Amino acid sequence: MSPIITLTTDFGYDDAYVAAVKGAILNINPEASIVDVTHSVRPQDILEAAFILNAAYRYFPKQTVHVAIVDPGVGSERRGIILKTPSAIFVAPDNGILSYVIDDLFSVESRSVIEETHGLTELVFKAGLEAAAITDPRFWRHPVSPTFHARDIFAPVAAGLSLGISHYEFGEKISSLHVLPIPKPSLEPDGNPVGQVLHVDRFGNLITNIRCNNLPGKDVVVEVAGQRIQGISDYYAQKEGVMAVAGSSGYLEISLRDGSACDFLGIGVGEEIRVISAA
Amino acid sequence: MSPIITLTTDFGYDDAYVAAVKGAILNINPEASIVDVTHSVRPQDILEAAFILNAAYRYFPKQTVHVAIVDPGVGSERRGIILKTPSAIFVAPDNGILSYVIDDLFSVESRSVIEETHGLTELVFKAGLEAAAITDPRFWRHPVSPTFHARDIFAPVAAGLSLGISHYEFGEKISSLHVLPIPKPSLEPDGNPVGQVLHVDRFGNLITNIRCNNLPGKDVVVEVAGQRIQGISDYYAQKEGVMAVAGSSGYLEISLRDGSACDFLGIGVGEEIRVISAA
Amino acid sequence: MSPIITLTTDFGYDDAYVAAVKGAILNINPEASIVDVTHSVRPQDILEAAFILNAAYRYFPKQTVHVAIVDPGVGSERRGIILKTPSAIFVAPDNGILSYVIDDLFSVESRSVIEETHGLTELVFKAGLEAAAITDPRFWRHPVSPTFHARDIFAPVAAGLSLGISHYEFGEKISSLHVLPIPKPSLEPDGNPVGQVLHVDRFGNLITNIRCNNLPGKDVVVEVAGQRIQGISDYYAQKEGVMAVAGSSGYLEISLRDGSACDFLGIGVGEEIRVISAA
Repeated sequence: MSPIITLTTDFGYDDAYVAAVKGAILNINPEASIVDVTHSVRPQDILEAAFILNAAYRYFPKQTVHVAIVDPGVGSERRGIILKTPSAIFVAPDNGILSYVIDDLFSVESRSVIEETHGLTELVFKAGLEAAAITDPRFWRHPVSPTFHARDIFAPVAAGLSLGISHYEFGEKISSLHVLPIPKPSLEPDGNPVGQVLHVDRFGNLITNIRCNNLPGKDVVVEVAGQRIQGISDYYAQKEGVMAVAGSSGYLEISLRDGSACDFLGIGVGEEIRVISAA
Repeated sequence: MSPIITLTTDFGYDDAYVAAVKGAILNINPEASIVDVTHSVRPQDILEAAFILNAAYRYFPKQTVHVAIVDPGVGSERRGIILKTPSAIFVAPDNGILSYVIDDLFSVESRSVIEETHGLTELVFKAGLEAAAITDPRFWRHPVSPTFHARDIFAPVAAGLSLGISHYEFGEKISSLHVLPIPKPSLEPDGNPVGQVLHVDRFGNLITNIRCNNLPGKDVVVEVAGQRIQGISDYYAQKEGVMAVAGSSGYLEISLRDGSACDFLGIGVGEEIRVISAA
Repeated sequence: MSPIITLTTDFGYDDAYVAAVKGAILNINPEASIVDVTHSVRPQDILEAAFILNAAYRYFPKQTVHVAIVDPGVGSERRGIILKTPSAIFVAPDNGILSYVIDDLFSVESRSVIEETHGLTELVFKAGLEAAAITDPRFWRHPVSPTFHARDIFAPVAAGLSLGISHYEFGEKISSLHVLPIPKPSLEPDGNPVGQVLHVDRFGNLITNIRCNNLPGKDVVVEVAGQRIQGISDYYAQKEGVMAVAGSSGYLEISLRDGSACDFLGIGVGEEIRVISAA
């Protein structure tokens, strides 16, 4: 059992919140190796956290426990959940913060939508879902603050999981999870994808939802913000100016050599991007 | 003996200072598990560090070593100290950075003021104080830089403490500590508390010095920045708009659902807040 | 063999990049103790990273593995290298990010310039260089992303080194390294040094390239930004206003008590500074 626990939150680096979570973990498993994914998710931006978590977790050892907390509904009726997959264990509120993880792991055929409320979709899984609601207060830190489940519920649960306690010890098995809508590329009649920018990174790279291995090749034209970019580059130093790059997570990125494509093009998350096969 | 060491400083995340401190610790105890509380305390803001340290340390395992360094007087005559309490060991300059910790741990009856200078109050403790001045250079990194005791004195002392060396090995027992004045709520003639905002967190929550368990109940009116807030909410999603919440550290907070109460109300640290019992 | 690995990058704290690197390390050496030096180097600012790395690494235990990645040329022909010194192992692109480390370790007599291209100088070392090009793909994470060698090449190599694998297992021995020009103080005809500001820290201290132990004493005059500063102070609280201080890394610093010398003087990196012996 791996003693690694990662944290993805919107708690920031300035307050005592992250340390309180780490202390609560170390109280239960002093051997835990805690790794920050990030704590600078925009406050309450569940989908940003979902994107970053999905971009980070796959590089960790199997059975790493990934705690993801952006939780404007903390203290309300929203559930806390544990999701166990072949390569990781997730601990999070059931508010859509696992949307990208779930979308990558479960095929559309394996799930059915049963309800949509407040922008959240409840998915029921026919088979293959190993998930539990966090309901057993034996493992929690008491008294539980209604505004800080990360410290009082999620941290001790994650610590317990890192000690090898089975996820079903923390609450009953569940067969549904909630997700937020994820922007998906559409296909033009000619088969060319139209996607969106999902994330802007620190360098100003625009990361899209178009998978590079779905492209017909490198000899394509990419249209974004009124620019036409010829071909897919392999790396940033390959040419000058704005370029389309096969990004390190497998998605198409728009980059500017030694600069910020985001600033240069004046665009950001949600911007449309088109890939046109070279004629 | 726990090998956990926490760090609370104003060193920031951009320079080599924090890494130098960690390297100096790991040189002496390579098994130390070092946890950042925060390094983004405003430069020279001793009281902000004091507040955050006090909000964080109590969640760590007993005997964790907490190093707190905001130290504009580094190199001068101000002492370095070790304070041992039943639940933690603190290593810090004796400049008020432990003010909140001391205020919570020692009753007013257990201490007497002996001197006030440069805004600092020297408290003498009648009994129960386990503290040492850091004076024995055997444990230090040499040569000691007069501007970086964190690296050359506090780090090796903390590492030594994490190895189980007794605090009195590092210097002589002391019976007094210095504190900064902490804003305290006052009571109106009718018994209602008037407090202040002590801290604004990343979410814009305004954290006050009014203890929730001192309130007559949840059915009160909170007055702040010309607003009257009806009742104490349990969690952020309980209602819309500005609310008063029983915060996760036990103090009354003013919050805005899905937003920043600080920005919305246009107020910050020091602002007065009144609680009025519902008639 | 120490299992400590430090990271110095321009990846920032907001994206998944740092976590991906840590995951890739922990996949190979789950016992590695990973320490962040900083991830907030200005994007593509190789020399800033070089300065901070050099200011941090010397305080870590010997044989710590220091990974430094600011890598605008990632994916191109620039080499990845391992440099082993008596006190540390460095893993980095061969793009000048080790310039300060190399400058401190190797005398001018031990090396000869063979080529200068694109601002980089290739130095050939006559003897004493223990360095390898990272060329053996056995140790890499596959498939290797051409834009993220930190995750796919440098992280697994660092993890392997931390497990005690010899640096020459990762590729062939090399006898040259590339460096960027480092600003050096010059000497006036009267022997007084004229230096430059190399770095501005979080407190606004201006850190120069003038070594304090090269000064004739503390009784000098320092000229900077039209100001004349009398004498070298030992610590910040020693006097009021702008002062010259013997900094904690051994270099002359310009500081302002309880404030930012950078803001107060309106100067930054590159500014000239003169030391004049008191007559």
